[in-house]
Amino acid sequence: MTKQATETEGFVLNQTMLRVRDPAISLDFYLQVLGMTLYQRVDFAEMAFSLYFLGYPASHEGQTLPDDPIQRSQFTFQQSALLELTHNWGSESDENFMGYHNGNDDPRGYGHIGISVPDVYAACARFEQLDVEFIKRPDDGAMKGLAFIKDPDGYWIEILNADAITALIEDRGALYH
Amino acid sequence: MTKQATETEGFVLNQTMLRVRDPAISLDFYLQVLGMTLYQRVDFAEMAFSLYFLGYPASHEGQTLPDDPIQRSQFTFQQSALLELTHNWGSESDENFMGYHNGNDDPRGYGHIGISVPDVYAACARFEQLDVEFIKRPDDGAMKGLAFIKDPDGYWIEILNADAITALIEDRGALYH
Repeated sequence: MTKQATETEGFVLNQTMLRVRDPAISLDFYLQVLGMTLYQRVDFAEMAFSLYFLGYPASHEGQTLPDDPIQRSQFTFQQSALLELTHNWGSESDENFMGYHNGNDDPRGYGHIGISVPDVYAACARFEQLDVEFIKRPDDGAMKGLAFIKDPDGYWIEILNADAITALIEDRGALYH
Repeated sequence: MTKQATETEGFVLNQTMLRVRDPAISLDFYLQVLGMTLYQRVDFAEMAFSLYFLGYPASHEGQTLPDDPIQRSQFTFQQSALLELTHNWGSESDENFMGYHNGNDDPRGYGHIGISVPDVYAACARFEQLDVEFIKRPDDGAMKGLAFIKDPDGYWIEILNADAITALIEDRGALYH
């Protein structure tokens, strides 16, 4: 890959932040169902919110997540491709909480995160067993081999495979040459 | 790092998707101001939208972005930490277009992406020169050394440094031990 320009050398896309209603439910989903690792948790008691930083260890291969919380934080905030979940305390038990907006209905904006997997069909068969909610199963619609699931707050997650999506895009003559 | 469980081995957080009004303006911002590289562009003429996949090459060190569009696509959809910009054709010239929702006003949900940089003050001094819009300058408020800027659609981008944010969090006793 080409080197980054001097002015932006060392810039890393560290995090994508989503607000979640109940961290117990979200952590169960992202850790157990999607297989992420919890890198760091931060609790701001004064401001009544917590942050959870999750990611895939394979993206940071050869590195070690430090046990010491300060070193772990220094490590975490240098990594790429983390998901940051924000929990404003109390939402999980607030009966009047209206839920978070996933950005795909009006007003639109944010769309989804996308996870690249070795086999979309195998991944989705497992998601079915784990009662994950689907927006699009791999064989729904024209775009075969590509799926969308929902996280516990209703955020969309694309499940894709590099070869399969390339074949789909190529088939539609959509690749930019 | 611990190995991912067998069921989710090979899962990679590939992309975060945001809709943008005008790709020319957004590409200028993400490539020139933030220093990202365009990995792949995909044009779906039938459905009248284009996708732009951007990222930091340093996150995929030692790898080469292929020239061939098919190989480049296969490569792109295996990487971690990419930003996917979706452009629905025509929004850039539609006078009735209301803009995209950044998720930080009601209805809330998505928050921001965050970029880890070697020096927040140096990065922000450069952003000032480039007329980037700030939500929070590094010395605004109690959280010194941490900034938020806006992209051309109004999406928030956190500018952070691993050591500086760790010191801030530690100072507040917020690290989870």
